[in-house]
Amino acid sequence: MSGNSIGRLFCVTSFGESHGPAIGCVVDGCPPGLTLAAADIQAELDRRKPGTSRHVTQRREPDAVEILSGVFEGVTTGTSIALLIRNQDQRSQDYGNIAERFRPGHADYTYWQKYGVRDHRGGGRASARETAVRVAAGAIARKWLRERFGIVIRGYMAQLGEVPVPFESWDEVGRNPFFAPNAGIVPELERYMDELRKSGDSIGARINVVASGVPVGWGEPVYERLDADLASAMMGINAVKGVEIGSGFACVTQRGTEHSDELTPAGFLTNHAGGVLGGISTGQDILVSMAIKPTSSIRLDRRSIDKSGAAVVVNTHGRHDPCVGIRATPIAEAMMAIVLMDHALRHRAQCADVVTTTPRIAGLAPDGRQQPPSPRD
Amino acid sequence: MSGNSIGRLFCVTSFGESHGPAIGCVVDGCPPGLTLAAADIQAELDRRKPGTSRHVTQRREPDAVEILSGVFEGVTTGTSIALLIRNQDQRSQDYGNIAERFRPGHADYTYWQKYGVRDHRGGGRASARETAVRVAAGAIARKWLRERFGIVIRGYMAQLGEVPVPFESWDEVGRNPFFAPNAGIVPELERYMDELRKSGDSIGARINVVASGVPVGWGEPVYERLDADLASAMMGINAVKGVEIGSGFACVTQRGTEHSDELTPAGFLTNHAGGVLGGISTGQDILVSMAIKPTSSIRLDRRSIDKSGAAVVVNTHGRHDPCVGIRATPIAEAMMAIVLMDHALRHRAQCADVVTTTPRIAGLAPDGRQQPPSPRD
Amino acid sequence: MSGNSIGRLFCVTSFGESHGPAIGCVVDGCPPGLTLAAADIQAELDRRKPGTSRHVTQRREPDAVEILSGVFEGVTTGTSIALLIRNQDQRSQDYGNIAERFRPGHADYTYWQKYGVRDHRGGGRASARETAVRVAAGAIARKWLRERFGIVIRGYMAQLGEVPVPFESWDEVGRNPFFAPNAGIVPELERYMDELRKSGDSIGARINVVASGVPVGWGEPVYERLDADLASAMMGINAVKGVEIGSGFACVTQRGTEHSDELTPAGFLTNHAGGVLGGISTGQDILVSMAIKPTSSIRLDRRSIDKSGAAVVVNTHGRHDPCVGIRATPIAEAMMAIVLMDHALRHRAQCADVVTTTPRIAGLAPDGRQQPPSPRD
Amino acid sequence: MSGNSIGRLFCVTSFGESHGPAIGCVVDGCPPGLTLAAADIQAELDRRKPGTSRHVTQRREPDAVEILSGVFEGVTTGTSIALLIRNQDQRSQDYGNIAERFRPGHADYTYWQKYGVRDHRGGGRASARETAVRVAAGAIARKWLRERFGIVIRGYMAQLGEVPVPFESWDEVGRNPFFAPNAGIVPELERYMDELRKSGDSIGARINVVASGVPVGWGEPVYERLDADLASAMMGINAVKGVEIGSGFACVTQRGTEHSDELTPAGFLTNHAGGVLGGISTGQDILVSMAIKPTSSIRLDRRSIDKSGAAVVVNTHGRHDPCVGIRATPIAEAMMAIVLMDHALRHRAQCADVVTTTPRIAGLAPDGRQQPPSPRD
Repeated sequence: MSGNSIGRLFCVTSFGESHGPAIGCVVDGCPPGLTLAAADIQAELDRRKPGTSRHVTQRREPDAVEILSGVFEGVTTGTSIALLIRNQDQRSQDYGNIAERFRPGHADYTYWQKYGVRDHRGGGRASARETAVRVAAGAIARKWLRERFGIVIRGYMAQLGEVPVPFESWDEVGRNPFFAPNAGIVPELERYMDELRKSGDSIGARINVVASGVPVGWGEPVYERLDADLASAMMGINAVKGVEIGSGFACVTQRGTEHSDELTPAGFLTNHAGGVLGGISTGQDILVSMAIKPTSSIRLDRRSIDKSGAAVVVNTHGRHDPCVGIRATPIAEAMMAIVLMDHALRHRAQCADVVTTTPRIAGLAPDGRQQPPSPRD
Repeated sequence: MSGNSIGRLFCVTSFGESHGPAIGCVVDGCPPGLTLAAADIQAELDRRKPGTSRHVTQRREPDAVEILSGVFEGVTTGTSIALLIRNQDQRSQDYGNIAERFRPGHADYTYWQKYGVRDHRGGGRASARETAVRVAAGAIARKWLRERFGIVIRGYMAQLGEVPVPFESWDEVGRNPFFAPNAGIVPELERYMDELRKSGDSIGARINVVASGVPVGWGEPVYERLDADLASAMMGINAVKGVEIGSGFACVTQRGTEHSDELTPAGFLTNHAGGVLGGISTGQDILVSMAIKPTSSIRLDRRSIDKSGAAVVVNTHGRHDPCVGIRATPIAEAMMAIVLMDHALRHRAQCADVVTTTPRIAGLAPDGRQQPPSPRD
Repeated sequence: MSGNSIGRLFCVTSFGESHGPAIGCVVDGCPPGLTLAAADIQAELDRRKPGTSRHVTQRREPDAVEILSGVFEGVTTGTSIALLIRNQDQRSQDYGNIAERFRPGHADYTYWQKYGVRDHRGGGRASARETAVRVAAGAIARKWLRERFGIVIRGYMAQLGEVPVPFESWDEVGRNPFFAPNAGIVPELERYMDELRKSGDSIGARINVVASGVPVGWGEPVYERLDADLASAMMGINAVKGVEIGSGFACVTQRGTEHSDELTPAGFLTNHAGGVLGGISTGQDILVSMAIKPTSSIRLDRRSIDKSGAAVVVNTHGRHDPCVGIRATPIAEAMMAIVLMDHALRHRAQCADVVTTTPRIAGLAPDGRQQPPSPRD
Repeated sequence: MSGNSIGRLFCVTSFGESHGPAIGCVVDGCPPGLTLAAADIQAELDRRKPGTSRHVTQRREPDAVEILSGVFEGVTTGTSIALLIRNQDQRSQDYGNIAERFRPGHADYTYWQKYGVRDHRGGGRASARETAVRVAAGAIARKWLRERFGIVIRGYMAQLGEVPVPFESWDEVGRNPFFAPNAGIVPELERYMDELRKSGDSIGARINVVASGVPVGWGEPVYERLDADLASAMMGINAVKGVEIGSGFACVTQRGTEHSDELTPAGFLTNHAGGVLGGISTGQDILVSMAIKPTSSIRLDRRSIDKSGAAVVVNTHGRHDPCVGIRATPIAEAMMAIVLMDHALRHRAQCADVVTTTPRIAGLAPDGRQQPPSPRD
């Protein structure tokens, strides 16, 4: 494989370019018997799709998904599931002027030097449009994880540029275009984005994702640890430049007495580990945070070179997100789901017969009550 | 595979427990014709080995490596290379008291619940002793990368607890037990560690790794990007909780005009991307930074539970590193080497026939001169 | 992955059911720069498609292929290539009577017990219709192998039931519906099939495939040998029950003096090895032969059971090939191409730098002349 | 990976050369909780080891195995299991005369042209000595399969050169050096081999392997079918040139009414399929047959070339098996075990939740009684 697949047992193989005929994927390894309809996937795609507010790209893509295989009479059959999303709004002319030059911060130069050929229309394969595929595949994983284990995966914007977004409530996340878990801060975010858009510049963001209800024991011990696979999945999202599990970089200045989470019969007292110890889930919430760089496509002048190596000036007037982090939350959730589902299958492959009499503890909720246990695992 | 292998074409499969008979690995996919002796690997192992200063564990392990296969008359043959390191200093009795209880911050609880059985001696498979294997395998990769492409991989400690370690010179890194690139700060680091050791507590650290001379074009476009694989490799090192590429989390507050690196005929003007765009190397230095949590084995009392679920108190009096970050630099370098070598082979598998007439640019050195080009690629 | 992918570096992931909306695949790892159009693939699909003579199924499928990604301006870009074939002639009603019972010789019982659910229409995923996907993907591989290395892959029917088909000429293969390399025997094959069809029964066949021009050195040494991968690829074709390389089962009664091919400066004197020694290509023709079982769908009564375990009688009146071997030749060629291309990429990943001064020898043509060397390798 | 690993979830990575310091492997993915001692593995190695009769090589190798990891207090821990076999009887001088020339029928020429370097001592990596590793790894798989599912894997010699060996009884197989299931024929086999040895020539053989008790449902649907993986595993054994499942090549002349096995409530009436339909096990015996070529190392003169391409004469006076098929039975059994165990884990990863109310049927014993069901699955 050449980098278009993710997962060993729940394996997603992606295809498609921003302005080609279609994008899509093949999802292999899904257990049979899961009820699945296009509407299940569409609901997730609609959360990510462009054009839903003035703060994101105005490209109009219905992102209508078609299930081509692997589902019969509304139920997965255990064979490979192909998902197809036709591209609709392909104004290739927007991109003609960048065919011969390399946009700073984009993959134009690296693709060209690697492959000697590239589909330059809208970034081609390197476009963030490919992330729709991840969301579609992730929708299958999160449905299975929820129905089989009661796992809930939720993300939110934790910071927009210089503006921290304090967590208040999961309920708010779906009520604003930023995925902000805080109603009071939305006006400030809107002002921030309106000013930014006028300036022609772009900005970064921080996204957090939490998986609740993951049983203890998922993950591998040395190289394909749960945290390593999560780091790979998140760093593999377009524009991500940093990933943290649990305390993340804050652990540099932590003492062992602070960082290592104590266990009690009622549960873990803290969750600096972020729900992973030795590469294996603890039963606590899985906590991941990531940094998303500012959009590289801006309409301000930037120095660059063209294919002949000559100096040029580039600015980009297409329809772009001034902060790609705004639409990143559903993508990060989807990647979390794909990784967890893969490890769910891997775990039971090797350890289906394991039983211990040791009670399974989880984390403690902020008010001291133990988190609700998974319905079954 | 169950998480003991890394790499697709340059593939390392690791084995061994802290207090079992031996640790080691099989390195598969190494190109034939590389001159290789045990001494080449030993040199790297000696940089990581315990007992070299009062600031690290006093366990005495010569870590003598034996090459069992894949090398004939001093040259790799292209077949699998097995490396064996016998364990010497196995004071299992040190660990008897933790067989029935779970040390906070360690993988004891997760291994037990996952596997229903564990080798509790010194952490067994979860011990950082396994990282010697990574250093050994990485020594092969870095030798090939250096000889074939002129690539140089170097790491250093960038922060110890609250003490930042400003970069001054690569020359200093090998002259102190901290891998600090700064001679003047070493006395402060020593005082810091002496006080910490007296307190019985432990501390985190930040490690940076840089690869210079990597050609443009290595990496994959979507899921197994070079940055994603580096994130996985680094997050998979024991105790790592965060990984950054280039600007990392600083990009959250950066504007696009600041972050996206401009190109000129003389080279990239900055390297916020950390040498990777769209998952593919740019020809600039590859910049990775990681957070290492404080050692979980401390001799202060910590609450925990035992196998029956009952509350217990744990403290650990074995021989431990009060800051595992101190010996982490050679490990991080080795992981960088393994990932890069894997991608070197993957790249030429698919793209060996690619030629472009576009000049290859690299980064600019701080003084404005272009970085020296690779000898060949 | 769950058995819908083949190849490590040139990797084909297949999807689709016989009577679902579509079949297709994603081809990942194709080198960039290959000129490729749908017509290149269509030409191979047309060789396999049903309804071309009275001796095969009368299902009418145009098998029109659409390239959804990975090709831009007529050239492969190095990213994943998605191929889509919409199903047209889906008379599901033909199959309604077998939804609750298991057809002998088919995968009905095994799919049902494995997955607990199955798409019973026309065999669903287990239908030989899936082999169109292999032919489509194989068309890409054989085009690259031919253009890059001058490799020619050709197959033919070597036996139909009790009727051996002596090899006379490659030229004849494309001139009759049996892929018989012998014009004189075609009337006998037609009579044989006409009688068989009247009887309502079905028959087996033997197919041979030859790859010429494969350079010495492709393949792996122990487990993923070239011959092992070929055996897997061929045994994985629906209905194949036996695979031979070179002399195959004839070697059971051969002496070492007969079997092991002598080398001379002019070339190998014989090719009992079938072009593979120690898992690695010799430079001679690669010779593979396979046995294809009689079609399981016949209109004669057969005993079976239904989902409740009760005894039933099954006969199948749909549109079926009375000898699936007749259309198997293009499929076997395609599988050969996929395996060879995968090993071409794997070989240069590890061994791109190898040079020896030893002359490369090939086989000797039947008249004693050496086979023409590959244009380059 | 470069061809030294087999299996996706139960994964064996092999290393070692015939005359290097050691051979061995890492077995990854074994479920935890299996009781395992070196003696379990040694018992299987002793069945394969050389020097046990005058009909096989007189090389003396105790093949003593050491378990280096993955087992603690007599039980597998779920982490990687390393097995080490030191080479003892390394008379490298026997092989000095073939360092510069290529033995016909061996991998000498192909290794040399592929890698540009080879360990020529006794065939190096291409030596059948590597098969000891397979037997060792297979011993773990067969122990787990037997204890967990009641699966029994047994093989036997079915033909030695022109001498068919009719099956009479499993009991006889272990009582003669040929693994012949027939006491009466052993004197004839001994005479045959004595004459052959005098002649200096070698001969081929046919080996059959049967797995009983495999539950219905193991295997994958399209490319990594159970039969395809078995074909790969068997063709990957040194000297194998042909593989059959069930009826194998006999199906070429079979009618559908003969070949496709009818089902009844009491079980399948026949087993032409060899226990696999659509790539998935049926619950009947898995039947595999393979052809093993005559040993290439013979002491008769053979034409060849040397490294300069010049004509030479080669004959081989080392200690060789005149029929490598004689010791092949334990190897073939081991490969069967490895493949089955891998699919056992793969199956439960995806389909652990599947239940059907359809009774599970198996084959019928020759006397009409149904085969005993598996103890559990």
